[in-house]
Amino acid sequence: MHISRKSDYALRALAYIASQKAEKKSSISEIAEAESIPRDFLAKILKELTRSGILKSYQGVTGGYQLARTKDTISFLDVIEAMEGPLQVNLCAGIENDCGCSRFNGCSMKAFWDQVQDGLAKTLKDANFGDGKIVSR
Amino acid sequence: MHISRKSDYALRALAYIASQKAEKKSSISEIAEAESIPRDFLAKILKELTRSGILKSYQGVTGGYQLARTKDTISFLDVIEAMEGPLQVNLCAGIENDCGCSRFNGCSMKAFWDQVQDGLAKTLKDANFGDGKIVSR
Repeated sequence: MHISRKSDYALRALAYIASQKAEKKSSISEIAEAESIPRDFLAKILKELTRSGILKSYQGVTGGYQLARTKDTISFLDVIEAMEGPLQVNLCAGIENDCGCSRFNGCSMKAFWDQVQDGLAKTLKDANFGDGKIVSR
Repeated sequence: MHISRKSDYALRALAYIASQKAEKKSSISEIAEAESIPRDFLAKILKELTRSGILKSYQGVTGGYQLARTKDTISFLDVIEAMEGPLQVNLCAGIENDCGCSRFNGCSMKAFWDQVQDGLAKTLKDANFGDGKIVSR
């Protein structure tokens, strides 16, 4: 039960970009070196973060990446869900109707997993990149 | 960020065994059918739960599985760690010294992941199989 390497890299890349001046465009090479992230994997991650509306991408020699929103509106949950899809601690968690495991009716565990998922989602939603460093409320 | 299918099956198998009378020995086939778990995978899981001291195994025609401890002393964390190894929400979480990601010194995220891990561990430790149903304190 752990976040993926991809999400960890995405969060670290964003922490780096958030720590720079707002007008600065950070290049892939610069972020890869600063955060010890494999360059090709990072390129793919930054492209996905741009598609998700978390980063803005600028082409050309002086191009690079900037945050697309203010630091304090980008939560860890936004980033993890952009990388892994909706948070789902177990098959049934958060599902309103049939969870697809053929045991939806009478399952004694669903309420527990719903509670775990809600708690984790809140923690990840409350953490953001405000003030150029990680802020957890 | 989710528990493995293996852990989910292990928890459901234990919930089934815990719901039976204490002296009852539950067979693999019976648990597999009741919980819709693939039989061979379940056999492997029950063997590992026995090796971890959570189940007792009895051989022979009238054999089967019983809880090795009282219901309220078997936590969800015990079961998940028996299946997946120590809880580790990210590489660095809960690690006292070097987390192995070459960024241990000055990493701004470690405190956050330690906090996520502590919260999740507490929730999973507080949930057990007492009273023959899942109990979350």
